[in-house]
Amino acid sequence: MVQRRVLTLLSDFGLSDVYVGVMKGAIAQVNSNLLVIDLTHQIPPQNIALARFALMSAFPHFPAGSVHVAVVDPGVGGNRRAIAIALGDEPRRPLGFLVGPDNGLFSGVCNRYPILSVVELTDFHYWHTPEPSSTFHGRDIFAPVGAHLASGIPIQALGKSVAPQSLVPMEIPSYIQIEDANERISKVTGCIQAIDHFGNLITNIPGSMVHGKTWSVVIGKLTLLGQRVYGDSPPGKLLALIGSHGWVEIAVNSGNAQAELHLDWGKPIQVVVRG
Amino acid sequence: MVQRRVLTLLSDFGLSDVYVGVMKGAIAQVNSNLLVIDLTHQIPPQNIALARFALMSAFPHFPAGSVHVAVVDPGVGGNRRAIAIALGDEPRRPLGFLVGPDNGLFSGVCNRYPILSVVELTDFHYWHTPEPSSTFHGRDIFAPVGAHLASGIPIQALGKSVAPQSLVPMEIPSYIQIEDANERISKVTGCIQAIDHFGNLITNIPGSMVHGKTWSVVIGKLTLLGQRVYGDSPPGKLLALIGSHGWVEIAVNSGNAQAELHLDWGKPIQVVVRG
Amino acid sequence: MVQRRVLTLLSDFGLSDVYVGVMKGAIAQVNSNLLVIDLTHQIPPQNIALARFALMSAFPHFPAGSVHVAVVDPGVGGNRRAIAIALGDEPRRPLGFLVGPDNGLFSGVCNRYPILSVVELTDFHYWHTPEPSSTFHGRDIFAPVGAHLASGIPIQALGKSVAPQSLVPMEIPSYIQIEDANERISKVTGCIQAIDHFGNLITNIPGSMVHGKTWSVVIGKLTLLGQRVYGDSPPGKLLALIGSHGWVEIAVNSGNAQAELHLDWGKPIQVVVRG
Repeated sequence: MVQRRVLTLLSDFGLSDVYVGVMKGAIAQVNSNLLVIDLTHQIPPQNIALARFALMSAFPHFPAGSVHVAVVDPGVGGNRRAIAIALGDEPRRPLGFLVGPDNGLFSGVCNRYPILSVVELTDFHYWHTPEPSSTFHGRDIFAPVGAHLASGIPIQALGKSVAPQSLVPMEIPSYIQIEDANERISKVTGCIQAIDHFGNLITNIPGSMVHGKTWSVVIGKLTLLGQRVYGDSPPGKLLALIGSHGWVEIAVNSGNAQAELHLDWGKPIQVVVRG
Repeated sequence: MVQRRVLTLLSDFGLSDVYVGVMKGAIAQVNSNLLVIDLTHQIPPQNIALARFALMSAFPHFPAGSVHVAVVDPGVGGNRRAIAIALGDEPRRPLGFLVGPDNGLFSGVCNRYPILSVVELTDFHYWHTPEPSSTFHGRDIFAPVGAHLASGIPIQALGKSVAPQSLVPMEIPSYIQIEDANERISKVTGCIQAIDHFGNLITNIPGSMVHGKTWSVVIGKLTLLGQRVYGDSPPGKLLALIGSHGWVEIAVNSGNAQAELHLDWGKPIQVVVRG
Repeated sequence: MVQRRVLTLLSDFGLSDVYVGVMKGAIAQVNSNLLVIDLTHQIPPQNIALARFALMSAFPHFPAGSVHVAVVDPGVGGNRRAIAIALGDEPRRPLGFLVGPDNGLFSGVCNRYPILSVVELTDFHYWHTPEPSSTFHGRDIFAPVGAHLASGIPIQALGKSVAPQSLVPMEIPSYIQIEDANERISKVTGCIQAIDHFGNLITNIPGSMVHGKTWSVVIGKLTLLGQRVYGDSPPGKLLALIGSHGWVEIAVNSGNAQAELHLDWGKPIQVVVRG
């Protein structure tokens, strides 16, 4: 049996209105045999940074050639560009495609994979309507264009090529590493880049920096020893570990670290690594 | 590749229980090759008017022949009728089908398209079970009947024909237009008919009444000039525009108009159109 | 047309993160032709008892052979077993399959159907990766294993057989029935086992104990006569009926019984049956 092509959707539309359903209607008008998967539609309104993080976390777990349509788009109807990006090494077999507004949303994924091509979506033949609304390009441009891409239309057909260097970048907080040769430790200062449904605090410090070492997270007077699994601490206890997306994470076994610590997005976090 | 037939679901069931999943189980027992799309399941409990609005907004964006199952059904188990409606001009190629309780839910869509036929769902061969529960006709009648319709069963097979005139109507607030020939303006008084996830206040005044003209929304002492896109106002500023569903809408660029204005559903809104 | 095989997902992951979407990505990597249905992802974090109830309610409404992947997994990464269970009478045509952690989650369904086989998931060929994360077995083990099962891999291939008797049980509150021959009544004391989105209070007392009889629910000084449908009481009035999952339920016609009564999960409820 031929495998269905995958198209994912990410937005800040929430699920209480019909916006997401209507995007799927526009996709079905192009091709109702695609497999449409929701990444999430509960990105906080207009929060491009969290959308960027979500997409970066999800991208590696989808089949090669999947199309990811992402719509967090405060500039809709203005002069921000609508784009599609092909990623990978082989022009004939891209790793994946990104479709959405050019506002930094895709910068996380694009930093991690080679860019094959970038196209500005100018050809209205692939749109839901040649006269799109000025407020809902998810329905009128991005979803149907994504459906055409997933159905095999070449990316070049969607509009004019643009230089990857011209993509809108996004400044995101970085981490700083300081080696202390005397004490044989290194200190990494990063921050919280996301907080999940369980209240796990996900930092921007890569797990690879602490993997296989003795390490701890220091928050004020609190020191949390780096562990392997939630169950390495008793229920209700704070701990640090490498989370499933590959970042250093602060959690509570069977509990909620955010409710315990009240640390918000952007809050600095220090990791101390020994040996 | 043959395109899959589309069946949409709309309800007030929320997503925390298994009710929606179970309706999809009942559909899969009929035909697991349908494309099932959720419009929304977060209609406020028993709010038929908002369900009506949601369905009316979504309907035009689906492929011809799609089946829309809608279950906001405070009278379940009582003597309200269970119905299916075919819409369009051509009996052999309906534009779409509606399946659900006869309580006014479908009156918005039915006002906009010709009715081909209405059937009361009396034939239990197309139900999940010949002895349906008295509280969950979404699972026991509407979802499986919708699945049979989408699979090609003719609407007449589902039960006995009834007169379209007998459908339960819904009184909804209307708008009033007053021309002032002296001042060369016209004033339209309508109301807020829906508030979306972004806090956009959606009026019941059609965008076609203001399109291409100079117009503004007047709320008490506040006058909001009609704009084309969110970005025509600075971030954080209130504005008025024609929203993506085609109604006059009050919004905040990158913000939440409902949080700003605290206007509820039903609140009167005046639009002034010049020239 | 060949019917697609069904795989359902149940979790406490919520919908605000990409966790659910990523599980579906892992499934699509195995087989993108499956029909994936969400039961719910809004089980309260780590609440195995409510997950058990949800699964038990949903199971009977799915096609024979459906695979149910359930991930409420506070012990992830520790030494709890990962398992798959086949249910039914005929080894060649199981009624359904369960995949997830061995923590009592499946005990409700397993009490109701014969167990054909139980396998511990030890063969990493069917996993998303041979080196699974220690915090997200939903993505790395359960979802892909479920996808292989739904695609026709025999359950025995997934790992080593284990004895059904070794499955982790779950202690759940039971009901007590006392016959009073003098008064010709019987009293059943149970408790609230779930509260749904509408605020309906679902007890653990089977509807079969009251079906066809005169009965009432007694809560303190309040007596609610058992009815057939919501509409048998006036809007806003408390009532008792047999809910759609087959349990005695306390509800308000067009209202919210939980908001009225403030009764929590576990609260004792008495039913009095006459004649």
